[in-house]
Amino acid sequence: MSAKKFVYFFGNGSAEGDGKDKNLLGGKGAGLAEMTNLGIPVPPGFTITTEACIEYQKNHDYPEGMWEQTLEAMKKLEDAVGKKFGNTENPLLVSVRSGARVSMPGMMDTVLNLGLNNETVKGLANASGNERFAYDSYRRFIQMFGDVVLGVEHHKFEKVLKKMKEDKKVESDTQLDAEDMKKLVKEYLKIVEDETGKPFPQDTTEQLKLAINAVFNSWDNQRAKTYRKLNKIPDDWGTAVNIVAMVFGNMGDDCGTGVAFTRNPSTGEKEFFGEFLINAQGEDVVAGIRTPEPIAKLKDEMPEVFAQLEEVYKKLETHYKDMQDIEFTVERKKLYMLQTRSGKRTARAAVKIAYDMYREGLIDKKTAVLRVKPEQVDQLLHPMIDPKEKYIAIAKGLPASPGAAVGKVVFTADDAEKMAAAGEKVILVRNETSPEDIGGMHASEGILTATGGMTSHAAVVARGMGKCCVAGCGALKIDEHKKILTVGDNVVKEGDFITINGSTGEVILGKVTLVEPELSGEFAEILKWADEFRTLGVRTNADTPHDSKVARDFGAEGIGLCRTEHMFFDGDRIDAVREMILAENEEGRRRALEKIKPYQKEDFIGIFKAMDGLPVTIRLLDPPLHEFIPHTDEDIQKVADASGVSFEKLQKKAEELKEFNPMLGHRGCRLGITYPEIYEMQVYAIMEAACEVKKEGVKVFPEIMIPLVGHYKELAILKEMVNSVATEVMNSYNEKIEYLVGTMIELPRAALTADEIAEYAEFFSFGTNDLTQTTLGLSRDDSGKFLPDYVDKGIYKEDPFVSIDVSGVGQLVEMGVTKGRKTRPNLKTGICGEHGGDPESIYFCQKVGLNYVSCSPYRVPVARLAAAHAALNGK
Amino acid sequence: MSAKKFVYFFGNGSAEGDGKDKNLLGGKGAGLAEMTNLGIPVPPGFTITTEACIEYQKNHDYPEGMWEQTLEAMKKLEDAVGKKFGNTENPLLVSVRSGARVSMPGMMDTVLNLGLNNETVKGLANASGNERFAYDSYRRFIQMFGDVVLGVEHHKFEKVLKKMKEDKKVESDTQLDAEDMKKLVKEYLKIVEDETGKPFPQDTTEQLKLAINAVFNSWDNQRAKTYRKLNKIPDDWGTAVNIVAMVFGNMGDDCGTGVAFTRNPSTGEKEFFGEFLINAQGEDVVAGIRTPEPIAKLKDEMPEVFAQLEEVYKKLETHYKDMQDIEFTVERKKLYMLQTRSGKRTARAAVKIAYDMYREGLIDKKTAVLRVKPEQVDQLLHPMIDPKEKYIAIAKGLPASPGAAVGKVVFTADDAEKMAAAGEKVILVRNETSPEDIGGMHASEGILTATGGMTSHAAVVARGMGKCCVAGCGALKIDEHKKILTVGDNVVKEGDFITINGSTGEVILGKVTLVEPELSGEFAEILKWADEFRTLGVRTNADTPHDSKVARDFGAEGIGLCRTEHMFFDGDRIDAVREMILAENEEGRRRALEKIKPYQKEDFIGIFKAMDGLPVTIRLLDPPLHEFIPHTDEDIQKVADASGVSFEKLQKKAEELKEFNPMLGHRGCRLGITYPEIYEMQVYAIMEAACEVKKEGVKVFPEIMIPLVGHYKELAILKEMVNSVATEVMNSYNEKIEYLVGTMIELPRAALTADEIAEYAEFFSFGTNDLTQTTLGLSRDDSGKFLPDYVDKGIYKEDPFVSIDVSGVGQLVEMGVTKGRKTRPNLKTGICGEHGGDPESIYFCQKVGLNYVSCSPYRVPVARLAAAHAALNGK
Repeated sequence: MSAKKFVYFFGNGSAEGDGKDKNLLGGKGAGLAEMTNLGIPVPPGFTITTEACIEYQKNHDYPEGMWEQTLEAMKKLEDAVGKKFGNTENPLLVSVRSGARVSMPGMMDTVLNLGLNNETVKGLANASGNERFAYDSYRRFIQMFGDVVLGVEHHKFEKVLKKMKEDKKVESDTQLDAEDMKKLVKEYLKIVEDETGKPFPQDTTEQLKLAINAVFNSWDNQRAKTYRKLNKIPDDWGTAVNIVAMVFGNMGDDCGTGVAFTRNPSTGEKEFFGEFLINAQGEDVVAGIRTPEPIAKLKDEMPEVFAQLEEVYKKLETHYKDMQDIEFTVERKKLYMLQTRSGKRTARAAVKIAYDMYREGLIDKKTAVLRVKPEQVDQLLHPMIDPKEKYIAIAKGLPASPGAAVGKVVFTADDAEKMAAAGEKVILVRNETSPEDIGGMHASEGILTATGGMTSHAAVVARGMGKCCVAGCGALKIDEHKKILTVGDNVVKEGDFITINGSTGEVILGKVTLVEPELSGEFAEILKWADEFRTLGVRTNADTPHDSKVARDFGAEGIGLCRTEHMFFDGDRIDAVREMILAENEEGRRRALEKIKPYQKEDFIGIFKAMDGLPVTIRLLDPPLHEFIPHTDEDIQKVADASGVSFEKLQKKAEELKEFNPMLGHRGCRLGITYPEIYEMQVYAIMEAACEVKKEGVKVFPEIMIPLVGHYKELAILKEMVNSVATEVMNSYNEKIEYLVGTMIELPRAALTADEIAEYAEFFSFGTNDLTQTTLGLSRDDSGKFLPDYVDKGIYKEDPFVSIDVSGVGQLVEMGVTKGRKTRPNLKTGICGEHGGDPESIYFCQKVGLNYVSCSPYRVPVARLAAAHAALNGK
Repeated sequence: MSAKKFVYFFGNGSAEGDGKDKNLLGGKGAGLAEMTNLGIPVPPGFTITTEACIEYQKNHDYPEGMWEQTLEAMKKLEDAVGKKFGNTENPLLVSVRSGARVSMPGMMDTVLNLGLNNETVKGLANASGNERFAYDSYRRFIQMFGDVVLGVEHHKFEKVLKKMKEDKKVESDTQLDAEDMKKLVKEYLKIVEDETGKPFPQDTTEQLKLAINAVFNSWDNQRAKTYRKLNKIPDDWGTAVNIVAMVFGNMGDDCGTGVAFTRNPSTGEKEFFGEFLINAQGEDVVAGIRTPEPIAKLKDEMPEVFAQLEEVYKKLETHYKDMQDIEFTVERKKLYMLQTRSGKRTARAAVKIAYDMYREGLIDKKTAVLRVKPEQVDQLLHPMIDPKEKYIAIAKGLPASPGAAVGKVVFTADDAEKMAAAGEKVILVRNETSPEDIGGMHASEGILTATGGMTSHAAVVARGMGKCCVAGCGALKIDEHKKILTVGDNVVKEGDFITINGSTGEVILGKVTLVEPELSGEFAEILKWADEFRTLGVRTNADTPHDSKVARDFGAEGIGLCRTEHMFFDGDRIDAVREMILAENEEGRRRALEKIKPYQKEDFIGIFKAMDGLPVTIRLLDPPLHEFIPHTDEDIQKVADASGVSFEKLQKKAEELKEFNPMLGHRGCRLGITYPEIYEMQVYAIMEAACEVKKEGVKVFPEIMIPLVGHYKELAILKEMVNSVATEVMNSYNEKIEYLVGTMIELPRAALTADEIAEYAEFFSFGTNDLTQTTLGLSRDDSGKFLPDYVDKGIYKEDPFVSIDVSGVGQLVEMGVTKGRKTRPNLKTGICGEHGGDPESIYFCQKVGLNYVSCSPYRVPVARLAAAHAALNGK
């Protein structure tokens, strides 16, 4: 019988596996095998596969043959090193380390120096001629094994060590001598026995087995699970176990250990970057007990080792064609590489390295583009807290719109506008914002809210404006009347400075220094390359000429969503809007609409000019009319005073328009059906604006979009109106405008009957915000109370408003595209929900064959890059 | 070349078409052909097909060959009658009538006496020897033709006629003589010329053409369109045109005309029923100028004609095997049949006739069952206004729950309970009811609301209780504080009597006599026959032992939906429920739940006993918790006073629980996920109740239903809890209960991922109320403001909450069934929304293969019958 192969050996210049076997051997195991094959000095060892781990997880037992293969490999290892495991003369010691497909730093466990016991420690002392080193290694082993395998808390050991250093009045471990180490070993062994009720295992084979089990089990510890959830790593990948002959950096001053990056992981500069410690084992570098020295100093201290290291790292980078994160140990001036992996880097570094490596000819353009993660580059587009600043956050909310902001606290939109007008920088703090706060939001540096989720009004509008926002920060108690904000014991008054970090959700007292990130030339270049590969168009959601320009500068190829309702709030218009709503009949409404039209037309003229030559999708009025009417008695009184309409009339109208479920109420095209005059006015404004700018030589391509269509007849009725108004306007201007009429697909019924709707629609724009709300039956404004529980319990992997729910909502989008194109093969399709700027969702859009995505201006670069990734990975 | 056949002749004892050609010849044309073939005396004529009408509608022109065929048929008709069309000696006159596939009484136009002009009228006078008759016919023709074909309003003619009668001081047309008629003709011709600017057409062929055009066009007049919409008749059926040689009931006292039914259309009694007029044309009977006499008197006046008629009607009923609605004319003692069709009848008559005809051997059981319309029988199950009563309604709302009720007006649920306890009959009048009004609704005879649609809280609950309800009666102005109801000028105070008619939506001042309808033995019998044919199960939605019993008596085969939340409101329980909601932590909630459990258990015991041997589907808590908390300051104070909880605490909780879109909020299984202890308590109560009644010998089959599942993981988590609690309870009682765990499918995502959900669900119950809300993005509580517009404009044929939206929601239901059964072939599927009692929706349920429908107790007989129709029509 031949059991499955679960163990892969490497050493003596060759390995059974190689760098391509990451899934089977984990990242670390594959790296060790690959380095061995490359002739790079690596201590010999072997890897137990991730498959073995999965089997173990399932059956709580090793798969057949694994243990036998492990013992065989140990024999081979003994031969390679010339030492024997458990031997009392010259014992073989090994490290046992986890290693998953992708790096999960610090998440899983490691044991060094395994193979020591009360007898073999003497052999090690003899063989090394260094008793202190032997007992130092043993006490380190007892602590690590005790902690990782036997569950004895490590501070118990450290307390003893600390006491000894205090007693001996020394600062560092290195100042303790062999006798001290022996004493420590004794005390450590006692700690283990006291804590576990059993003596420390002396059988080295048992040690090995227990350590392997511990590594396997560590795949499922809480820390690892959480990390996987955050990083979207599947639970069924498992970890490999790497058992490697120990080499020792702690045998004396001709020994040492270090970690390094082949380029600067923070800036991307092409410089060897890292640090090392003389006479130390690997964990000392990270532990921070001694301060490591910069890698450049190694050149002075051990020039021959540095030369070897330089040769190795260049070899590795040339071989892997990527920046490497390496670990090494020097044992008696001999260099051993213990790990190599692709190094984590900041967005800035990712861009610089990808750009440089392409210029160096190491990688091609595609690879360069793929090296920059779309999720990451968002941070390059917003101010951020100076990484050198130290601060303590007083509360943490949702990172709703990236970037950081510093300013004086204000509690109302009015105050924000007033103080900003006076030249102050302000942060608007609200329980939740509403459309009436738009002006104040504009005037603020950032927005902080106590309720509302990632797609609350504050979050959506802030992202649209490219403004920093922390939302749903439940710890805030806001007293709007007293103008006081309380967080625990901290009381913040109006005018006090705070800093908010929209990339992390942190709220900080006082001012923190910010840095303005630069949109480097390299980044712009990488985005250009991305454009060469992507097939998805990238448009923007913009409601003003200013936003349009910002987005265009970021590379937007048109507007995918221009929301006309925001235009209804600005300045005096809101009065005319309210007049329209309060009108008793159609005639009255038409009179008020006539007042709004010139404003709307001006808006469109501005946007058309900013978007000269590019398509502009304009959505007709969408929100329910009650959004334009004040609701609290106080606000009603204010509007009554300002507008001259009686309090009672306003109150009555507000009551009349009140809805139980406004999301499912009288909005979208339902307004167009019941009050055709509103949509008519908007179409006049659009078409007149188009004709006028065309006369000035602007190339204009309006796409008129009808929202909330659920039944093809709604669209049929409204399209007829649009065409008739458009024809009338074009005739009167004697101009021909190329325009389209299409619809949002944002209700399940629209997707289900997309074949019927496509008879009338010339384009579909998937409004996946609302489609998510209706498909999942989930109000985004209310879901904050239970959705976190849902994500915690793994019911949804991610907030479905942030990343599209592929199996539910995605199914409808796919159905909509397929059915729509069946009726109208050249149907233009796009997405204009918040998902349009989310990389995962963009991959999905590519997969189902949409023509474009549309996102807020500041997400446009992210979307361009994500679209390129989608196209390249799709191939 | 041979053109398509558009014209079908009948006469001389044989016809080109027959009774089966209804689609082509229309109901009237097919009936005339069939009667001709049966040897029944019918004046000869021909039918222009519905296909010709459709072609004409499309092209605004006759299809090729139609006109030639018409002229040919006119020749044939001249030969059959022995008169010539347009001939000045002995002219042929014809009637031109519409006739669609199904009867659309009074909706389209008819012209009689066509062929008369200034010359032929003289021929008619000569040939008939009756100048008065000839000019009477001519003036009738000018008026009808003027009205129908030329668009001259008929009251213009009537004014002249009226004046002449006044001048001559006579009462009736018959008292006018030949000279008067000649004068009338002259004046009528002048009216036409004045109104149309052209002389009355004298060319009889032109008259014919214009009349045919008018009938074709009448298919698309507003009246006909509206009728079709109301009766769900497709727009593309078209109408046929019947051109028939005139016979004259107005040639003297040996002439006459009448209409009759072969059985009593009101009671179904087997008696010849109808009325006739001597010396009159058809329209005189309907016009109501002269009072017709009961048909029995014809036996005395013209015994030989009556004998002929008796023979004919028996022949027709035997032939058609259904009650016939006939029209006849007697010309000089000779009987002519002008029409036969299946007669409209009341529900009571439909039941009696179907039952009798089966007993008489005329029809088989299947036919008998199919003869009774499910839509209609609902009226047999509720008290109704005595048909003999005359009354004037002061307002009209939606007919939300059938039946009628009389009582004193009360404005609060409390008052309703108090007055009912004092022995008064009351009608509860509210703007809209809420769950807190349940007690008061129970105590009332009927419910009247000012807002809310067919599926508002009031409507749904009232239908569930089998209580009469008029909802959404917008004309009502309710002043709850002053306890006054105003409708226009009418003021109704508390304690005043009103009558409401839930079958029509009428609101009437004062008391109107009601009759209790009897559930006749025949009806019960027909339902039994229906049960023999249906394959769909019929269950009921019931929350109490009483409702369960009512439904069981009506034939329910189990409970398809037992809502546990209604149990949360009764009596003292609401205090414990509020205590649970106000609890600070799980422990506090558990304490409160322990108080609720004994009540829940008692409820289940009662229901299980009432449903001994039948399955009972129990839905775990569904509504958001804020429904159990008062919201207005006044109500909060009341509860605070009663419960001892502080006003502030209650108010804060209400604020905390408030949701923007409660429909899409924290409800259904989301409660079970965040507060598992609530669902746990309910499962304990269910399973303990089941074990206890089983020990008493009751056969119990609980089906535990998890609401609002959108993701299979929700169900997976909750099913594990249910099974673990169930096992614990069964072990402790040492009983084995056959129970199922399943889910509502009421979110689009659930239907889309039904294959995944069916891994865990043992049954699906489609909650099409909520599924409609989410699929269409339509809040049923808010849709009242625009849905009527939608139905008016034909966007939705019917309120989608009343009859299932087959192409949208239906698609999801079908998908759910198909995907669910793919995973679990024996998956039990049902529907428990309001649609479960709607015949159209039941036909759909049969089509997609559901196992059962569930509806309110009083709809069970309707559903049984509809299910039989579905099964029989499906074959």
